Amino acid sequence: MRVQRRVGPAQGRLGVLMPGLGAVATTAIAGVEAVRRGLARPVGSVTQMATIRLGKRRDGRAPLIRDFVPLAHLEDLVFGGWDIYEGGAWEAAVRSRVLEPAHLDAVRPALERIRPMTAAFDQRWVRRLSGPNVKKGTRRELAEALVDDIRTFRERERCDRLVMVWCGSTETYVEPGPAHATLRAFEEALDRDDETIAPSMLYAYAAIRSRVPFVNGAPNLTADAPALVEMAREFAVPLAGKDFKTGQTLMKTILAPGLKARMLGLRGWFSTNILGNRDGEVLDDPGSFKTKEVSKLSVLDTILQPETYPELYGDISHKVSIHYYPPRGDNKEGWDNVDIVGWLGYPMQIKVNFLCRDSILAAPLVLDLALLSDLAARAEMRGPQEWLSFYFKSPVHADGVAPEHDLFIQQTKLKNTLRWLRGEEPVTHLDE
Amino acid sequence: MRVQRRVGPAQGRLGVLMPGLGAVATTAIAGVEAVRRGLARPVGSVTQMATIRLGKRRDGRAPLIRDFVPLAHLEDLVFGGWDIYEGGAWEAAVRSRVLEPAHLDAVRPALERIRPMTAAFDQRWVRRLSGPNVKKGTRRELAEALVDDIRTFRERERCDRLVMVWCGSTETYVEPGPAHATLRAFEEALDRDDETIAPSMLYAYAAIRSRVPFVNGAPNLTADAPALVEMAREFAVPLAGKDFKTGQTLMKTILAPGLKARMLGLRGWFSTNILGNRDGEVLDDPGSFKTKEVSKLSVLDTILQPETYPELYGDISHKVSIHYYPPRGDNKEGWDNVDIVGWLGYPMQIKVNFLCRDSILAAPLVLDLALLSDLAARAEMRGPQEWLSFYFKSPVHADGVAPEHDLFIQQTKLKNTLRWLRGEEPVTHLDE
Amino acid sequence: MRVQRRVGPAQGRLGVLMPGLGAVATTAIAGVEAVRRGLARPVGSVTQMATIRLGKRRDGRAPLIRDFVPLAHLEDLVFGGWDIYEGGAWEAAVRSRVLEPAHLDAVRPALERIRPMTAAFDQRWVRRLSGPNVKKGTRRELAEALVDDIRTFRERERCDRLVMVWCGSTETYVEPGPAHATLRAFEEALDRDDETIAPSMLYAYAAIRSRVPFVNGAPNLTADAPALVEMAREFAVPLAGKDFKTGQTLMKTILAPGLKARMLGLRGWFSTNILGNRDGEVLDDPGSFKTKEVSKLSVLDTILQPETYPELYGDISHKVSIHYYPPRGDNKEGWDNVDIVGWLGYPMQIKVNFLCRDSILAAPLVLDLALLSDLAARAEMRGPQEWLSFYFKSPVHADGVAPEHDLFIQQTKLKNTLRWLRGEEPVTHLDE
Amino acid sequence: MRVQRRVGPAQGRLGVLMPGLGAVATTAIAGVEAVRRGLARPVGSVTQMATIRLGKRRDGRAPLIRDFVPLAHLEDLVFGGWDIYEGGAWEAAVRSRVLEPAHLDAVRPALERIRPMTAAFDQRWVRRLSGPNVKKGTRRELAEALVDDIRTFRERERCDRLVMVWCGSTETYVEPGPAHATLRAFEEALDRDDETIAPSMLYAYAAIRSRVPFVNGAPNLTADAPALVEMAREFAVPLAGKDFKTGQTLMKTILAPGLKARMLGLRGWFSTNILGNRDGEVLDDPGSFKTKEVSKLSVLDTILQPETYPELYGDISHKVSIHYYPPRGDNKEGWDNVDIVGWLGYPMQIKVNFLCRDSILAAPLVLDLALLSDLAARAEMRGPQEWLSFYFKSPVHADGVAPEHDLFIQQTKLKNTLRWLRGEEPVTHLDE
Repeated sequence: MRVQRRVGPAQGRLGVLMPGLGAVATTAIAGVEAVRRGLARPVGSVTQMATIRLGKRRDGRAPLIRDFVPLAHLEDLVFGGWDIYEGGAWEAAVRSRVLEPAHLDAVRPALERIRPMTAAFDQRWVRRLSGPNVKKGTRRELAEALVDDIRTFRERERCDRLVMVWCGSTETYVEPGPAHATLRAFEEALDRDDETIAPSMLYAYAAIRSRVPFVNGAPNLTADAPALVEMAREFAVPLAGKDFKTGQTLMKTILAPGLKARMLGLRGWFSTNILGNRDGEVLDDPGSFKTKEVSKLSVLDTILQPETYPELYGDISHKVSIHYYPPRGDNKEGWDNVDIVGWLGYPMQIKVNFLCRDSILAAPLVLDLALLSDLAARAEMRGPQEWLSFYFKSPVHADGVAPEHDLFIQQTKLKNTLRWLRGEEPVTHLDE
Repeated sequence: MRVQRRVGPAQGRLGVLMPGLGAVATTAIAGVEAVRRGLARPVGSVTQMATIRLGKRRDGRAPLIRDFVPLAHLEDLVFGGWDIYEGGAWEAAVRSRVLEPAHLDAVRPALERIRPMTAAFDQRWVRRLSGPNVKKGTRRELAEALVDDIRTFRERERCDRLVMVWCGSTETYVEPGPAHATLRAFEEALDRDDETIAPSMLYAYAAIRSRVPFVNGAPNLTADAPALVEMAREFAVPLAGKDFKTGQTLMKTILAPGLKARMLGLRGWFSTNILGNRDGEVLDDPGSFKTKEVSKLSVLDTILQPETYPELYGDISHKVSIHYYPPRGDNKEGWDNVDIVGWLGYPMQIKVNFLCRDSILAAPLVLDLALLSDLAARAEMRGPQEWLSFYFKSPVHADGVAPEHDLFIQQTKLKNTLRWLRGEEPVTHLDE
Repeated sequence: MRVQRRVGPAQGRLGVLMPGLGAVATTAIAGVEAVRRGLARPVGSVTQMATIRLGKRRDGRAPLIRDFVPLAHLEDLVFGGWDIYEGGAWEAAVRSRVLEPAHLDAVRPALERIRPMTAAFDQRWVRRLSGPNVKKGTRRELAEALVDDIRTFRERERCDRLVMVWCGSTETYVEPGPAHATLRAFEEALDRDDETIAPSMLYAYAAIRSRVPFVNGAPNLTADAPALVEMAREFAVPLAGKDFKTGQTLMKTILAPGLKARMLGLRGWFSTNILGNRDGEVLDDPGSFKTKEVSKLSVLDTILQPETYPELYGDISHKVSIHYYPPRGDNKEGWDNVDIVGWLGYPMQIKVNFLCRDSILAAPLVLDLALLSDLAARAEMRGPQEWLSFYFKSPVHADGVAPEHDLFIQQTKLKNTLRWLRGEEPVTHLDE
Repeated sequence: MRVQRRVGPAQGRLGVLMPGLGAVATTAIAGVEAVRRGLARPVGSVTQMATIRLGKRRDGRAPLIRDFVPLAHLEDLVFGGWDIYEGGAWEAAVRSRVLEPAHLDAVRPALERIRPMTAAFDQRWVRRLSGPNVKKGTRRELAEALVDDIRTFRERERCDRLVMVWCGSTETYVEPGPAHATLRAFEEALDRDDETIAPSMLYAYAAIRSRVPFVNGAPNLTADAPALVEMAREFAVPLAGKDFKTGQTLMKTILAPGLKARMLGLRGWFSTNILGNRDGEVLDDPGSFKTKEVSKLSVLDTILQPETYPELYGDISHKVSIHYYPPRGDNKEGWDNVDIVGWLGYPMQIKVNFLCRDSILAAPLVLDLALLSDLAARAEMRGPQEWLSFYFKSPVHADGVAPEHDLFIQQTKLKNTLRWLRGEEPVTHLDE
């Protein structure tokens, strides 16, 4: 018989700290505030909207997830963050033009009180951006300053628990190097102000040191560095990441499992994106684009298993491009062309045109991951949280196995993990 | 501990009888012949190409399905069928222009030897078609003639086992009526030549009487009538159906679970199709279209559970249209427009343009279902086979539960049923 | 040497009377009011925005059209109309949700003062609509009441001149019959209350009787009836029509001339539309759809000249469908699939997806046609105005010649007519 | 009264020399051969298929262009060319997989007898290609060798007249420099083997020296260099170019005039292409792509006249990208997203997906331009031929005026030039 895992209660205030108070972060904050006031619904949030089936099909047991596992309540969330611009959440929300004036106006005071802490930033890592609200100092000094920021925020806002969700920009591409190999090497690199340490790593380091779960919404290496994984295990802190799975890649991890389920072959997948927001501007830089490209290209292989199915998936032209195109603003648009192969090798095509909204798709992920990484901390699940793969383009994964990209396997893993936490049987769709 | 179910061996020749020797049937036959000769691969066939994972992720056990369960070999298949045209499989294959001349030429002798048996047909049920190769007589006489045809074929072709796969046209819409209520009522209706008995029902009746598994590739009521379900249980015959899930609806049952997994709302789904083959011509008739439309419209509801998620899925405009458009021939094209809703209710759109090939997508389903319904018969699984839902737009289902349309749940159910047959544990993606 | 035609001056107030104060009419009115106030630009209006080249390329003479020919000024326009609903222009504009609240608020008083006159309406001609603000009486009585309405409006609003622009719904399909054959027959039919006289004909009759130019924005037969053409010539009144050329058909008359210019063949053109406004609801009725379909299907033939180019255009599958799809509101969307043929007969495809806004595209046409039909009246151009074909799906045309649908020939004709009016040479793009 | 221009007769054999015997050239040759044999039709060829209207609409005079002006007959064409590969036209045609085996087989002997002359080539100008069939020597030596090749071909094939049509690859981008400024400078640069002289310029130089009309199908600078324009005028040789207008850009010059005709504004035009042929491979090199990009980006400005219409067209994001994507082969696919603006500034979108075939669209242009540049030579029209703009992405144009990109103005100019040649009135669509 299955037993329930002990999970600490979700009492008191939960602080959500976000490096990068831009379109995604402010859309998430404004949305939570609107939901609290009963003005809108948290559509896209699995923790708030979804049910979970328990037992057999005919049992009729399907509570809301938020009634099934002990999550922090929206009323208990407190938001804060860092940004290189000084304006604060209200200005950022207005400037990003994601939400309509009527929605923003309704939560204006809540946004106005969120002022950014001074950011740890280095333009060599994000070439297209620069801003005035930036800390000065060596990497060691910056890291310690971030630890201080966290402590100050916790005290000032009377938080019982904290989580950190990276909502900042995509940094330039970097492979793991000697400075990222072990915690000791990392600490030494901090001391000598080693330039292979990216700003995002400083945030992750400060979070882990502060025993705050860290979630990485961008494709940056950050906490995937072995040093920080080691540190997270040692400090018993959950890590989740990386790169929020939103528009085109979300579609890819929905479609590819479908094609594979039917054993339809694949010859090519061409993906292009147009977007006109700050993210688009940042990705117009080749270094940042490389980081994003690697993340976006990785998803097909583990879904399709080309080594198991060389005839079907052994030779695929997979291309991804992103174009900064100002007329669109935050209304990202993806166009995918999928060249598939059927019976006897006959070619067919699927074209997907996704007129999405970048921050609208990402905001509920910020909320879910804040709540679930806090749950993980209370359940004493430490280090990389593979069961949260559902939310990421480049999910963390156990050593020696491939990351899981299939959205439906990810969903099963997420829900069965929640069932396991509460001592319920997994669902097998078998003899029910 | 799980035990293995006893399954009869797959020895000897398996006859595959198809009412309707048109584009789908001849593409299936030509393909199997080409695969036998090593000229092509059976892409799209799960029984031939797919593996099945056993045990834990790290165990590395993933045999081909055809090595895991005892299926008939392609070498042992024998094809036959009925058609209202006299020409035979070769002529039908050439006329339907699905396969290229080079592919057809390579298997010409095999196709030429397949001559259609005289069909049971009634133009009131398929208004756009008429042909010379048609049986005369009352419904009772036609049913008995089909039973004779089956016996003659079995003897002439020295078959050990038979299956029947309906590959004929879509009949005009009919609701289940008194004549379809019980086996006794059905038999009496046959005797009085009741006109509410559709030709397809005569084939199903003859198959069951002959203890031949019956698979329904069209949306016709046919074996879904309670009378024939009762008969199949009594005669211990597996039934599978209905309506091959190929192009647009396949995509729908891939995408909709993905949207729901992420709790993205839906306001509308507009689907249109253009196709220029005989199927398109038949569906140009409002009666036949109604039958197809009902089948195509049903899939969203049970996937999305509007009663559980009224905010997200309670008010959806779901439209389906099909247009006969001769320039396309068998190259069916679907265009879908999906109006989705995200965070705080903001609208987004997904557009899918599927340039598919109708018969290329359907042919591997004919093969898989012939093999799996034969497996079911040898495993003594009788009546409607819910675990084969994976292949159908309107899957049969147990009384009192909704049909399952989510392709990924269907796939899990299919594979876990195969695991169960062989005494293996189901896969839960949990703690592996 | 060319001479200038005498054109009466554009002094005083011009009343614009619109049967149908719905989305199109109120978007036009609100827009003119916003432009007057300097709040927006009349994008899409050729009379307001376009220049016209005069003389040779190097001459550099290209005045704005509104500076070149004497048009009424926007300041001198006065709007009025009829509707079956009582609410008035403000309510209709709000309900149709075309313009954003900020735009509407800025012109609210101007819209609020426009109250609909009681409409001449008959639900047998527009089955999906019904409303309370409807005149009672025989057709003769209704016609006379409309004449009275026009006189009253002219006096009350102190208009120097009037034009009438039909902005109402699509009526059910009707072929010209005996009652429409001559003016005498039409008068007699009015007297005997003949039911083949559509409501829209009563408006056209009343306009012509009042010497008011009549413009038909819908595909209804209306003033195309020989009786009313005869009457317009006799009363020296310009007629323009019919069916505003806006979204999909506009694209068709842009693309088809391009394909023909390059002698690319055509095998099929499949067009589908989704829209969710009142127009979509009306066209959901088969009778109204037939009227619209005939109008939309006619454009390809005269552009492509199948009798001259039978190899290229002699056998085209041209299909048009329209679907009422509420999620879209006024944001009409068209999807076209064009099957073209190139060198040696090789097939290619063009797909066009037009996410347009119905009333946004139609509104500037209302303005242009009001101004240009008033110009025609002052230039004493009587009867059907072929040079305004540019604006219509089913343009009126001289007897014995085909209507011109090619947008670029239509544009040349429009501009060369304006040049002719002012005694300028036509442009030939030859030796300049 | 208009008079007819004297045009030399089209007697005897016309040699068509093509640098680059790849997909485009061999598709053109195979097509002409198939048409000669009555096996196919020259669809897409204006000279072969189109009529030209003479006089008034009601006159009914509309002969075929080839019956109206004296063009060389297809029977009199003789093909030849240069290539860096040795295989010849048959091998190139098979390898490029544009035409189906059945079409190629029918004209195999005609293709097999066409062997490439040794090419003047320099890999620094086309980085992705290299081949064995290449001349050695200084630029001066190469130029003289090409002049010899032309003379030899003329004699061997007993040609009365010759034309040269560049069908080779896109060279790397180059701005006109000192060596291209005057004919004298060019001759001196040849003598000193100046590396700013591209291989394509050597062909143009040799053609002009040989008094052979030169047509440039690629975006290379080539004969647009002032030196070669001067030389063409001096030697009385027609020049036409540059860059065949085929798929996406053809569509752009069809759509943009339509939008402008209606005074619809434009905020952005995003164009992406996928193709998998040799052209795609060449354009994968940034240098070659730059040349193509400049050509493709130029078309919108002169159509839309942003300086005349700053509100509508003054701030456009125009992006073009090309991606080498092998699954497509020669089946190029374009996807365009056009962000337009209507009444009061409301945004709308047009998306065009063009599934075209590169060489199928280009082949008839090769034929038309061979015939029309030969006509120009016989009509003693020297230097750049602006009236052939219809066929090019970057048309040559008179000094001091902008190039004309509007396909419909280009067509009018082409046809009115032909009318002028024969003493017919231009068509004005005015009072006819």
